[in-house]
Amino acid sequence: MINITLPDGAVRQYEKGVSALDIAKSISEGLARKVLAASVNGQIWDAFRAINDDASLKLITWDDSEGKNTFWHSSAHLMAEAVESIFPGVKFWVGPALEKGFYYDMDLGNRKLTEEDLVGLEKKMQELSRQNNRFLRKEISKGDAVAYFEEKGDEYKLDLLTNLTDGEITFYSQGAFTDLCRGPHIPSTGVIKAIKLTNIAGAYWKGNENNKQLTRLYGITFPNQKELDEYLLLLEEAKKRDHRKLGKELGIYTMDDEIGQGLPLWMPNGTIIIEELEKLAKETEGAGGYKRVVTPHIAKESLYHTSGHLPYYADSMFPPMEMDGEKYYLKAMNCPHHHKIFAAEPKSYRDLPYRIAEYGTCYRYEQSGELFGLMRVRCLHMNDAHIYCSKEQFFAEFKAVNEMYLKYFKIFGVDKYVMRLSLHDPEKLGKKYVDEPELWLETEAMVRKVLIETGTPFIEVQDEAAFYGPKIDVQIWSIIGREFTLATNQVDFNSGRKFKLEYTTQSNESDTPLIIHRAPLGTHERFIGFLLEHYAGKFPVWLSPLQVKILPISDKFIDYANDLKATLTKASVRVEIDERQEKIGKKIREAELSRVPYMLVIGEKEVLENKVSLRRQGKGDAGSQTVQEFINNITIEILERRSTEV
Amino acid sequence: MINITLPDGAVRQYEKGVSALDIAKSISEGLARKVLAASVNGQIWDAFRAINDDASLKLITWDDSEGKNTFWHSSAHLMAEAVESIFPGVKFWVGPALEKGFYYDMDLGNRKLTEEDLVGLEKKMQELSRQNNRFLRKEISKGDAVAYFEEKGDEYKLDLLTNLTDGEITFYSQGAFTDLCRGPHIPSTGVIKAIKLTNIAGAYWKGNENNKQLTRLYGITFPNQKELDEYLLLLEEAKKRDHRKLGKELGIYTMDDEIGQGLPLWMPNGTIIIEELEKLAKETEGAGGYKRVVTPHIAKESLYHTSGHLPYYADSMFPPMEMDGEKYYLKAMNCPHHHKIFAAEPKSYRDLPYRIAEYGTCYRYEQSGELFGLMRVRCLHMNDAHIYCSKEQFFAEFKAVNEMYLKYFKIFGVDKYVMRLSLHDPEKLGKKYVDEPELWLETEAMVRKVLIETGTPFIEVQDEAAFYGPKIDVQIWSIIGREFTLATNQVDFNSGRKFKLEYTTQSNESDTPLIIHRAPLGTHERFIGFLLEHYAGKFPVWLSPLQVKILPISDKFIDYANDLKATLTKASVRVEIDERQEKIGKKIREAELSRVPYMLVIGEKEVLENKVSLRRQGKGDAGSQTVQEFINNITIEILERRSTEV
Repeated sequence: MINITLPDGAVRQYEKGVSALDIAKSISEGLARKVLAASVNGQIWDAFRAINDDASLKLITWDDSEGKNTFWHSSAHLMAEAVESIFPGVKFWVGPALEKGFYYDMDLGNRKLTEEDLVGLEKKMQELSRQNNRFLRKEISKGDAVAYFEEKGDEYKLDLLTNLTDGEITFYSQGAFTDLCRGPHIPSTGVIKAIKLTNIAGAYWKGNENNKQLTRLYGITFPNQKELDEYLLLLEEAKKRDHRKLGKELGIYTMDDEIGQGLPLWMPNGTIIIEELEKLAKETEGAGGYKRVVTPHIAKESLYHTSGHLPYYADSMFPPMEMDGEKYYLKAMNCPHHHKIFAAEPKSYRDLPYRIAEYGTCYRYEQSGELFGLMRVRCLHMNDAHIYCSKEQFFAEFKAVNEMYLKYFKIFGVDKYVMRLSLHDPEKLGKKYVDEPELWLETEAMVRKVLIETGTPFIEVQDEAAFYGPKIDVQIWSIIGREFTLATNQVDFNSGRKFKLEYTTQSNESDTPLIIHRAPLGTHERFIGFLLEHYAGKFPVWLSPLQVKILPISDKFIDYANDLKATLTKASVRVEIDERQEKIGKKIREAELSRVPYMLVIGEKEVLENKVSLRRQGKGDAGSQTVQEFINNITIEILERRSTEV
Repeated sequence: MINITLPDGAVRQYEKGVSALDIAKSISEGLARKVLAASVNGQIWDAFRAINDDASLKLITWDDSEGKNTFWHSSAHLMAEAVESIFPGVKFWVGPALEKGFYYDMDLGNRKLTEEDLVGLEKKMQELSRQNNRFLRKEISKGDAVAYFEEKGDEYKLDLLTNLTDGEITFYSQGAFTDLCRGPHIPSTGVIKAIKLTNIAGAYWKGNENNKQLTRLYGITFPNQKELDEYLLLLEEAKKRDHRKLGKELGIYTMDDEIGQGLPLWMPNGTIIIEELEKLAKETEGAGGYKRVVTPHIAKESLYHTSGHLPYYADSMFPPMEMDGEKYYLKAMNCPHHHKIFAAEPKSYRDLPYRIAEYGTCYRYEQSGELFGLMRVRCLHMNDAHIYCSKEQFFAEFKAVNEMYLKYFKIFGVDKYVMRLSLHDPEKLGKKYVDEPELWLETEAMVRKVLIETGTPFIEVQDEAAFYGPKIDVQIWSIIGREFTLATNQVDFNSGRKFKLEYTTQSNESDTPLIIHRAPLGTHERFIGFLLEHYAGKFPVWLSPLQVKILPISDKFIDYANDLKATLTKASVRVEIDERQEKIGKKIREAELSRVPYMLVIGEKEVLENKVSLRRQGKGDAGSQTVQEFINNITIEILERRSTEV
């Protein structure tokens, strides 16, 4: 008998050779049906694989990310089985699970897959799924494995085998299909109920363009049709909300080959959003007692040796400029510059907490293949600030920062978010982590307390802290449910010492401040990218580049329209007139498409009554108001930064 | 007889060999006394030198910059005569005139000059001036010149002689002193009436630190004591107002060795001024129909080849960063980035004038020896904008820009300014200047018309335009009379074509816009440096980093002070409390020194009456006001950006 420890700490005894699936069945048949894999002593295993020793066990289902991963990897095998049954002689390279779905690279000879082929393949996969074939794992010697693929004439798998060690090689089979694979897999094909092959692409073998181009076939699967439908809907919605498409349509940003990759130029409309965001941040930070600073974008090499970014972080920085016999780097972060400002004037406890903020522009080197619209760029405008405080002040300061996050979530209608609190590993003190056991425990406890007291949803992650202290990564979900990692919030009890930052305590001694690094709005680039998707380009009025479009029905009303424009401009509303000699229907249609939140239709009646006929983008006619009523309403909507309309 | 043409066009006949001085005497004795030199056919000559051919002549006096230059150069000779008479055996290197004053480098052997020596030298110079010795010019052969200085044992002048061409060498003598010199000089020493030797410094021979260190003696002279006194007062005042001293005292900016030379870090107080200036610019530009953009600080090499900055301007740019097999440069100007924004979306005549503005940060390489506080830096935050317009729109656009300058002058109390209009030279079309003869004449005429119509003081300078069009450099004088070149305003009919910028005209053709480059507030660096001197750190309330300091007489009034602070903060006033347990006298003294414009003294009486006792920086007690009165007054003062107090 062996002892199996379950996640709740309960220990159960089973026969040696029991599988996770057997154990699940011993608990409940319902549970067993949901089991896709198992975590055995922290390793992901086949649920059907025999356990021969005492072990801690966690059953993995669709709800776990490892469950989805296994499900999609098995789906890739299922797809391969379907391909092989329809196109015999096909040879396979690799077929991994992705964050969403899976792909398999294959050599189909001269054959090109068509959309119709995909339909046929989906049908075949459905059929094979209904057979509910079991996935079977088989350990095999290297010699036998080589012999198998030599007979099959499969040079790809033979190539893979050259890098594998005899004794560690396994085959997995389901139905008529056998593959070289280290697993794990789901118990059987029957749970793969909803199937969609999404894309056909080319991929050079091993990513080398001198090699043969293989066919990369993408798919996604779910345990039920409902989830697949939701996913496809999300995909379609995400496509409509693609920030690159909207960014161009709405004149938010542009890229240019002569400027360089990953370096957005912010167009007038994008700059309005930037300025509104900066205004919000400055107001919020001003009320929070922050001072503002402005620092250069470059510094000498030695600054980054002091900070420790060089040489370790060099790969993420731009290459240096050599000048006057020295190396200058574009800054990849603002902290060292801010530390220099802290150090520029002597500080006493009276000056603490010393909070300095800057929309600092940083430059980071990302591989050109990694660059993606506004999401992965090389130029970052960061909503950055550093708080220098005493240990006694830390709790209140960290709490205030957390409250700032929550305030922003509310303003931007972010209902779903989670703080990912990364902690240290005591065994790695002095190596991966600064050797300050007590400070780690103290600050981690304070951070945790803040999150609990404020009811902020959070998860704790072991052994993922920064070198210099615990950190929080903020994950938020857009309104269509896509996840973004936007912001970060870090404790730092190391840089203060590195930069010899000091303040005089009340008892006239010298002490080093704790530092909080925080950037609640992340970068303009990523945040505006997120907002474009989140709002589908239909920004709330306060953020909207154009807030009001005046649509005179005919030229007769241009004077009234001009007066109205002047009145609205004076009230700080961003307004334009559509002066063209077009039919009002066309003017409305185009204004709707441009996503301007308010349209004011001006005709005879409006002029006579000194009123405006209101239309709300996407909502149609919204009645008529006097000019003054409209100004009052829109002004309040803007000042309150409302997400909903008047 | 020869014909002498005077500046007014009158032609007079004189005997061959007449001197400018003779001609002046023939006009009036008073005029002759003022003549220091002459411009003969555009060349500056000794007023006493014989004119042997027909010539155009301008008499040069102290009012001309060439007059001052000659006066100070002759003063250097007078100083050398005094030095030689007191320290026989001294050897001289070079002694040029400066923008203000002159110096002479000399080898005094082992002797070090003292302050007492200066007093003695000044006396000796006065004595030699009273002798009113004539300056005499003598052409001399190279052989005779070498023989003269060999006999004197003067290796320095011998070194100078090696680079001179026989036939072009002259000696100048006055009294007992003879010098190798190309001149020109004033007629005689008597006009040098007011003399001050200002500084003793060391200077390596030929600027090479491996050479012997010479003594560099500085002086300044004037034709009368009043001007010298005024100058010394200005010098003293400028010292008190030194922007580097004030910048540090007031926490405006700091420099740091690890960041790099010429790269100011803006401290919280400096950043408040930056933000107020940007707010002013954004308001003004917003009202002027400008849109705002934000562009990266770098671009690929090819952008600067397109613009033509590379290779010609490379020395003024930072060295490139090599990345992904390409060279990236820090931008030294914003124009090419802005052109890319213009080009990003198709434009029609409806979109023009297209005005885009950015507080763009540029980086320019300046020799480290040239760097000076905020006045010469390597990082520049520019109040930049580019206006793309048709030829028909140009006049109105240029006029609006000029009016913007005048508006700013008024706000900042700049009463003395002049626009320096640089024109092209028709003979250099196609070489130094774009070959567009008509466009040059048209735009120059339009620019001139704007300046005349608006009554803007300006001077015209031939042959100093930019390659691509006429330009205006704006020179302003601080309140103590020091001159600054702050801003520039340029017409550009070349870049549009280089960047293939186009718009569709009303007749559906394609045309290239004219471009206006303009930066009325120049850079934050230079403008704030100017303001520090101009206001002696006593900023008007709207610009003042701290606007109000509340000074409670004792702890009893802290609550009232806190309420008052909250009320003022709500009214957007920047306010602090001096909470220390110090005597009110000390609090006032220190607040005065910190240059905060308003101090509110709070005691029993103020609390009872809900009032404040007002003190204005540098003006003392300003009576008492109710809290609401004070808020109303200061709010208006801030909103109106007043330079004078309430």
